[in-house]
Formats: sequence, C-alpha cells, structure tokens
Amino acid sequence: MVLLSECRSRVILLLSLSVIMGLLNGSGVEARIRRYKWEVKYEYRSPDCLKKLVITINGQTPGPTIRAQQNDTIIVELTNNLLTENVAIHWHGIRQIGTPWFDGTEGVTQCPILPGTTFKYQFVVDRPGTYLYHAHYGMQREAGLYGSIIVALPDGQSEPFTYDYDRNIILNDWYHKSTYEQAAGLSAIPFQWVGEPQSLLIHGRGRFNCSSLTIPTLDTGVCNTTNPDCGPFRLIVVPGKTYRLRISSLTALSALSFQIEGHNMTVVEADGHYVEPFVVQNLFIYSGETYSVLVKADQDPTRNYWITSNIVSRPANTTPGLAIFNYYPNHPRRSPPTSPPAAPVWNNSRPRIAQSQAIKARRGYIHPPPSLSDRVIVFLNTQNTINGNVRWSVNNVSFTLPHTPYLIALKENLTHAFDQNPPPDGYDFVNYDIFKEQENKNATLGNGIYRLNFNSTVDIILQNANTMNKNNSETHPWHLHGHDFWVLGYGEGKFDMFNDPRKYNLDNPIMKNTVPVHPYGWTALRFKADNPGAWAFHCHIESHFYMGMGVVFAEGIEKVGNLPSSIMGCGETQGHYRP
Amino acid sequence: MVLLSECRSRVILLLSLSVIMGLLNGSGVEARIRRYKWEVKYEYRSPDCLKKLVITINGQTPGPTIRAQQNDTIIVELTNNLLTENVAIHWHGIRQIGTPWFDGTEGVTQCPILPGTTFKYQFVVDRPGTYLYHAHYGMQREAGLYGSIIVALPDGQSEPFTYDYDRNIILNDWYHKSTYEQAAGLSAIPFQWVGEPQSLLIHGRGRFNCSSLTIPTLDTGVCNTTNPDCGPFRLIVVPGKTYRLRISSLTALSALSFQIEGHNMTVVEADGHYVEPFVVQNLFIYSGETYSVLVKADQDPTRNYWITSNIVSRPANTTPGLAIFNYYPNHPRRSPPTSPPAAPVWNNSRPRIAQSQAIKARRGYIHPPPSLSDRVIVFLNTQNTINGNVRWSVNNVSFTLPHTPYLIALKENLTHAFDQNPPPDGYDFVNYDIFKEQENKNATLGNGIYRLNFNSTVDIILQNANTMNKNNSETHPWHLHGHDFWVLGYGEGKFDMFNDPRKYNLDNPIMKNTVPVHPYGWTALRFKADNPGAWAFHCHIESHFYMGMGVVFAEGIEKVGNLPSSIMGCGETQGHYRP
Repeated sequence: MVLLSECRSRVILLLSLSVIMGLLNGSGVEARIRRYKWEVKYEYRSPDCLKKLVITINGQTPGPTIRAQQNDTIIVELTNNLLTENVAIHWHGIRQIGTPWFDGTEGVTQCPILPGTTFKYQFVVDRPGTYLYHAHYGMQREAGLYGSIIVALPDGQSEPFTYDYDRNIILNDWYHKSTYEQAAGLSAIPFQWVGEPQSLLIHGRGRFNCSSLTIPTLDTGVCNTTNPDCGPFRLIVVPGKTYRLRISSLTALSALSFQIEGHNMTVVEADGHYVEPFVVQNLFIYSGETYSVLVKADQDPTRNYWITSNIVSRPANTTPGLAIFNYYPNHPRRSPPTSPPAAPVWNNSRPRIAQSQAIKARRGYIHPPPSLSDRVIVFLNTQNTINGNVRWSVNNVSFTLPHTPYLIALKENLTHAFDQNPPPDGYDFVNYDIFKEQENKNATLGNGIYRLNFNSTVDIILQNANTMNKNNSETHPWHLHGHDFWVLGYGEGKFDMFNDPRKYNLDNPIMKNTVPVHPYGWTALRFKADNPGAWAFHCHIESHFYMGMGVVFAEGIEKVGNLPSSIMGCGETQGHYRP
Repeated sequence: MVLLSECRSRVILLLSLSVIMGLLNGSGVEARIRRYKWEVKYEYRSPDCLKKLVITINGQTPGPTIRAQQNDTIIVELTNNLLTENVAIHWHGIRQIGTPWFDGTEGVTQCPILPGTTFKYQFVVDRPGTYLYHAHYGMQREAGLYGSIIVALPDGQSEPFTYDYDRNIILNDWYHKSTYEQAAGLSAIPFQWVGEPQSLLIHGRGRFNCSSLTIPTLDTGVCNTTNPDCGPFRLIVVPGKTYRLRISSLTALSALSFQIEGHNMTVVEADGHYVEPFVVQNLFIYSGETYSVLVKADQDPTRNYWITSNIVSRPANTTPGLAIFNYYPNHPRRSPPTSPPAAPVWNNSRPRIAQSQAIKARRGYIHPPPSLSDRVIVFLNTQNTINGNVRWSVNNVSFTLPHTPYLIALKENLTHAFDQNPPPDGYDFVNYDIFKEQENKNATLGNGIYRLNFNSTVDIILQNANTMNKNNSETHPWHLHGHDFWVLGYGEGKFDMFNDPRKYNLDNPIMKNTVPVHPYGWTALRFKADNPGAWAFHCHIESHFYMGMGVVFAEGIEKVGNLPSSIMGCGETQGHYRP
C-alpha cells in the first residue's frame, strides 16, 4: 500500500511537471512547434493590374509570413492542388542542420510533390533573422510562390539596436508571360528571351501601365488599374518612431535599388547576420538577399513620401516600383507632392561594389573565419551555346538537374543517377580573357558534383566574365544552400591568385547566404563544409539556374540520418510499392 | 555418333525455322512489335494563326499517327519533358485486354508520369479500325496532346468495302487560354467559364479571325494569318477515285457536323466496328468518336471544294473549320469558287438523333448482344452546385479522382484510397423532373465505384436532364474504357423502364466505345464486364469530366496480373524505396 501510494505520488508529480512544461512551452520560454497547413493552387490575381494566373498559398501571394522564435520547429503541411504540376519549396537561409532532406530543392534534396499529395516539411529555425521561402522547381518561383520567414530572438534576449516597430517588405519583378511560356522560350532554338520584366512589385503590388498595351487580344478586363489587387503598398508610420524594415528580394532577374524618399536607412542586418551599421540613401539588393534597415520617421509629417524600387545593372525600361511611406494620420491614398526620386545610373557598378564592400560583421557579433582554407575552387561564370541552346556555364559545364535527387542517390549509392566524375575546380586562368566574348570551347552539359571533405574549409572564387555579347557582363547573385559563408572580398577584373587573397578581410567579414558577383568582377567566399547533405549553390536569377548556372556540393553523406520516404518516388527511387 | 549427328541436324532445322519465322515476321504475316520513342514537351505553335504554347510529341501536334496491323504489339517509350508537369496517355478504343495498367488514365489505372521520366506503354491492338490516343490527366488533352491509331487487317484479309486510298482527319476545337487558365476558372467561386472555342481545327489547322482581337496586349506577332502553321489542311484527291476517310473528333467541348461540299459520304465504320452502310451529306460527330466514310471524287474536277466542320448543339459563334478538298491537279491553294456549305441549325437535335439511330452493325459482322442483362444502372446526368462550385453529377454524385489509382488500390486492397461505398444505381425515377432546373438535392462529391460481377452483362441507361439554366439540356458523349458496348437505343424524354426496353435493338446493334446522349434524351447501352481491371466511363467533354461527370467500373480484379511498378509512386503507393 505504501509502495502503491508512493508510486501514485510520483505519477502525479510527473503529470504536474509535464503540465508546467507545457505551459512554459506555451509562453514561449521553450522552443515551440509552429504548424502551418498550406494549400498551393493556381488562381487569378492582378498584382500589377494585369490579370494573370498565379500560384497562391492559402489564397495569398506573397504567401503567409512564417513568424517564429529561434530554435522553434516549423512544420508546414503543404497540399499540392496544382492539378497536373508538382511543387517543392525551399526554405531560403535556413541551414536545415540535421534535416538536409527538407531543404526543398527538387532534384537535389527531394522528389517533387505530386498533385493531391500533402508533404510535411519539418525543420528548426536555429538563428534569428530575416529569411525567405519560395518554390525551387522549374521556374515556379516566378509564378508567385514565395514568402518571408521572420525569426525572433528568444524572449529576454535583445537585438544590438533598437526600434519601435518591425515591418516586412518583399521586392520582386513581375512578368506577364507564364513560367511555362518563359521556359519554352529559353529552351527553344532559336533562343527566345522573355525580356525585361513588365513591372516591379513592392510586397506583391505593382502598377503596370495598361495603356502601353498595343497588340489586340481577346481577353476582356485583363488590365485594370482600378483593381484593388494592384493598389500600391502603403507603409503607415507614426512620426518620430523608428522602424526596422526587413527588405528582401526574390526577383526573377533584376538587381534593384530600394529607396525611401527623403529618408536615410541604416543597414543593421544581412541574411540573418548583424551588420556594422552604415547609412545609405538607397539600398542595392539582389535576388535572394535579405536586409534589415532602421528608418526614423523624422521628416515633415504633413505629407507622404515615395518608396521606390528601380532596376540597376541592366538597361531595363521597366516602370519603377512605387509604394507609399504614409505618415500617420495623412490619408494613405494621398500621393506625395513630389516626383519619385531618380534611379541610380543603371550601368555604374561603382556604388554597388562600394555598398557590397561596406557590409561587415557587427562588432561583438563577429564569427571569425578560419584563417586558411583546405581547398580553393574558382567558378568562371560564362554564357555558352550548347547543342544550339543558349546556356550559362560554370567552368564550361552547364548544370542540368538529374531526376533522382542527389541526396538520395548519394545516401543510397545509386551511382547511375548522375555523372560520378566531378566538374573542374577551375578554368584556364592563364589564357582565358574574361573581357572577351566567350569562345565557347569545350562547353558541355553536366550533372557531376563537388564532393567536399567533411569539416574542411572551402574557398570559392566566383569569377565573372563577358557574355556572348560584346562589352557585356552581368550581375549574378549566388546563393548557397545549407550554409552561411564569409564574404572575404570583392574585386574587379580577373582574380589574381597570388595577390588578391592577401587583401581578404579576415577581421570582420559578414556571413551571408547570397552574394552578388559584379560585372567583370570577382567575389571571394569561405565556408566550412560542416553540414552533412547535398547542397545547391547557384545563381539566384531564376532563368540563369534553369539555363545551367549552378553546382552542387556534397559533404558528410555518411553522417546523414535515415531519409524520410516522403522525399522519394522519382527517378531511380520510383521504387516498387510493397504494402 | 549417329545420335549426335541427328541431334545436330535438328538444331540446324530449328535454327533455320526461326530465321524463316523472323523473315515472316518482317514481312508482316505474323504480329509485329512496333516501337515508338516519344518526347513530350511544350512548344510554341500557331494552329489557328494565334501563337500559343502547346504540348507536342516529337515536335508535332496532332502527334505522330500509330499505324499497325491487328494483333501487333505497340510499345511507346514516352519521355516527359514538360519541366514541372506530369503526363499520362490514354489509348482510346484499345481495350487493353491483359494490360489494364496501360490504359493511361491517371488516377484510375496509373500514377502520372513525372518530368524527366521515361514510361513504357506496351499493349496489343487486337482489332482493326480507327482509334485515338490523348492525354488523360487534368485537362491536358486540350493543350494538343493527341493523335490517331490506325489498325489494319492482317495481310490477306480484306474489309467488306473497297476504296483506292485511305486518309485520316482528326477534328478538334481550340481555345486560346491555357488548360491551367481554363481549369482555374472552372474551380473558381464564382465560376468562370472559358466560353465557346476560338476556332475549329481540321487535322490540327484552323484559322482564327485575328481582326476580331480587340483588347490590347503586349505580345507582338501573336496572331498572324500568314503563319504556315495555320494554312488550311488540304486533302488531295484524284478524280474518279474513292477515298476512305477516317474522321475522328477530340473536341474539348463541341459537337460537330462534318461536311465535304457537294460530296456524299457513306458511313462504313464507327469506333472500330463495321457499319451497315448509309449515306450522309454531313456527319455528326461527338468528342471521342471515330468513323470511316467512303467518298468518291466524282464531282467537277476543275475546281476545289470546301471541307467544313461546324458546331452543333450549342449556340456558338465560332467560325467554321475550313479545309480544302483539292482535286488533283488543281492548285492546292486555289479556294473553291463557292461559299462554304451552310451549317445545320444548331438546336435541331432531330437529324442528330436520326443519325445516331441509323448506325447499325453491318450484316455479316454482327456481334449479337446477350438477350438479357444481369444488372441495370441508370445514370442521371445533372449540373449541380456543390460547396459553391459548379459541378456535373451522375445520380447526384460528382466524381472526384482519388490520388491513389483505383487499379492499384483494388489490387493491393488499399481500402483507405477511396470511398468503399458504391454510388447509387439510379435516381428518384418517379419524382425527378428531367425538364426542370436541377434542384440540387443531396448533391455530393464522391469517389466510390461500381463493382461489377465478372462476366456479367450490364445495361447502362444514360439519362439526360435540364441543366441549372431554364430550358437547357446539353449533348454529352460518354466514353467507356476497356470495353465496347452495344448501343441498344436512343430515346427522348425520361426513360420508361417498362416500355422502352421492349424497343431495344437486339438484332443488329452497333458496338462502340463512345456514344452521345442527346438533350433531354436517353441512350441505352449493354456490355459484358469481361475485362479484368478498373475502367473509367465518363463524358468525353474535357471540362465536364474535370467537373465530375464520370464513374469508374471495376471487375475481375482478382484476375488482374502483377501490376508493373512503373504505374506506381503516387498517393498511398508513394512507397518506401528499397535499393
């Protein structure tokens, strides 16, 4: 009896404890599980006043913002209701430590999610900061399937800067042609390029000039500037207050300059890392990047101001993106009395390079990089013609995704799934003239990968070059999955392997997951290959990756846990069903 | 030694025989294997002069014609290069005896074929005649993924009619909106119907009136009547010769009248069965039907004649389809000196019913139907509103495809894959007024199926009714997979279960796989449930099946052989890959 009574007390004690733990979880002291149920489907929307089929999540584009605290577990149960089209979603900037199979990169970490299927993504957001999610399958991201992930510090911890309000803005460019039409053109012989975007969206809203439509069509009501979908985004601010604006870009193509008329911005965060603060009038931002800036509503509060996005680095004639910086209590529809501020000169890369170089890790928050690397890989970025198709290549290899995801092929040792020979670690440094049109020598399609020694330190030099057009070199934002890298330096011209490394910033380099390579320039990165898995590294311009501008790194595959069967079902893993 | 020598002679004899057999095979005396390698992808084409993304097979739409002889084995290795979209192809009219898993019906007999995958269809064409193939996934057929299968008699056998030349024409209607845009509208609340087709194609060519475009767009060169893609189809005929024209229809929506100006047509084949010949001036043809007609080039040979297709049964203002019946050696571009013949009055169903009733089995080629049936199922066809969506229903159940194909679910006993309760065998015969707008009582979505006793004889009464609009009833062509059925009769109004069966034609009913149900009418069918498998039976109007107008029959599942793993990989069969 005594024993039984003791036992009962213990049970009660345990029950009470678990209730308390539950309450603690509920109050946010402990890491929480945040569950989302998403339905992905095609719907008509008019983000820039022109009615078009877009992909929505629960009816929205941009999709719902995921808000969490550091170390929370995110569970997204995604139901694909696209009818005949598959889907996959990448959690951009989330390193997926321990869950490389949920990186959402079709062909690299998972098979696509079939129509009618509910796929469960589950991962930990282990660092505070501003991140993104978006489709990573074909060119599906451009159909509007994207959104934000905002990870706060745990309760009781604080940022090294102060602000009154936290606001989020995603920038995008917008095409009227469907992703299928764009892709069919890119794969056509002769090559048919879709051209510059029709409009720029600020948080999903833009304004296409309907009167610029000239060729007749059958559709009625297709372009309507009074559609509420395309009313400009309005950021309401209280005079005197300081705002943390999380600015991110998921453009298909465009490099952007973001500006708030008459207001300076202090850059404090980049890709989830604190930046040694610096002040800008306009923020240059490339597809895949996220920034936080602090803005004080300290101007004449009796009027509103323009928020603008402009295309830089390309001679686009796309109308600027316009939104309203709305001083409360002015009417939000009241247009500013001024003209929107002028855009920077599109082909002057100096201020862009200067801004790239200004981004350093914040004092007190520096992650020191290893002082030496174990391997240096140089990636020459070129345009090529292969079998009559226009392609992009890295060291003359134009990347093609296999149909058995690398992570599964590597883990299950399916050696036929991709070319087992690695692509080259460099190019003909001595003879290749990066200022001349590509001579297209030995350019091939390939799906070989770079195998990195686990825990080794790898340096990547992204070397830009001339395209196939004379006197032309473009800007490429490269994004690395599964890691942050240190940005050691930017330079102009051909990277000098003897002298340039001496100029590396090893003191306070920023860590990022996306970084631009400027025209005719180079960017040097360093990272630790410490995350077991297979990881894409690619130009974040949607069409450039589609056209081959990417590579895959694999490391520590033997340390990868059991793969969930939900990521399988394609290529060599179509597998025999056994009930 | 003697024994050894004898043995050697026998080996030589056997070897010689097999060589001879091989030669015989090559000469077509024995059944052959016919192999096709198809690449399916999106390309720009202008079938009706308006440039649009279409799905091609090896660059063609309509796709390549499969030509074979009775009992040949067809192997199609289909590679899906659609980027993010799956595919499945149905072999329309081929019964798939012994290969129910290759019927190509997504959700019924197979999982969809993923991008990058090569899927091997393999089946026997066991009867001569005119058949079709087309996508059977979402509304993909409308994107241009279709073609003909023509099966000849074995060498030495002959048709019961004579002709000099054999020609093939597929009819279609054509929309400018993509299948995704159409489907998004059909699933939208409120319902957005795409409307009548923009043009009618005769063998993949039509002519849209570009000047009817009125709303401006950005696209340049989008509609061009000088594009060679949309030059009219020309059928060259030699004066005095007789042509067997194989006419088939794969319209998305339209019932058609097909006519050759000034020439009578003798109907001799329908859906692969010989017809007791009868003469028509215009052939009414419904989506999914195939006919052979004999036409003699016996008119004034100094001029050309119009070939036309016109929409009947709907008040469409679509321009007629036009092609040229080109008497050799007149110039093929020479237009006929006359106006195209007038279309039949769209809403007079009498001549259409009369033609349906005129189609009987040819004497000497009659397959007598069983005189009694084991089960009678009545299918009331109605329009409904379910959860705010406009749907079509059968006995108030609107069909939804499950994501685990029925054939696999049945064979592997996956009872959660679909509703195990069968849908009803009839409706409220006494009280339901087929001439009134649907009252929408008890309409539900459902994926239950009809299980038929193996080898039983089943009668199906397709009962048409009023739609949700006053005084409106439409024409629905119903297509049965895996079987031919006897067409026992057509009638007007509500089917009378006591008196109408007495009027059934049991003497010489035609066998078909597709049959129209006329407005406010009924059609009575009989078939033997003698083909082990799971088989769709549905309205062949693409949007109607998408909106729920279909059912599934299952029979003799225990006799179905081992399912190939290639059809699996979706829904509950996504299965764990084991290397």
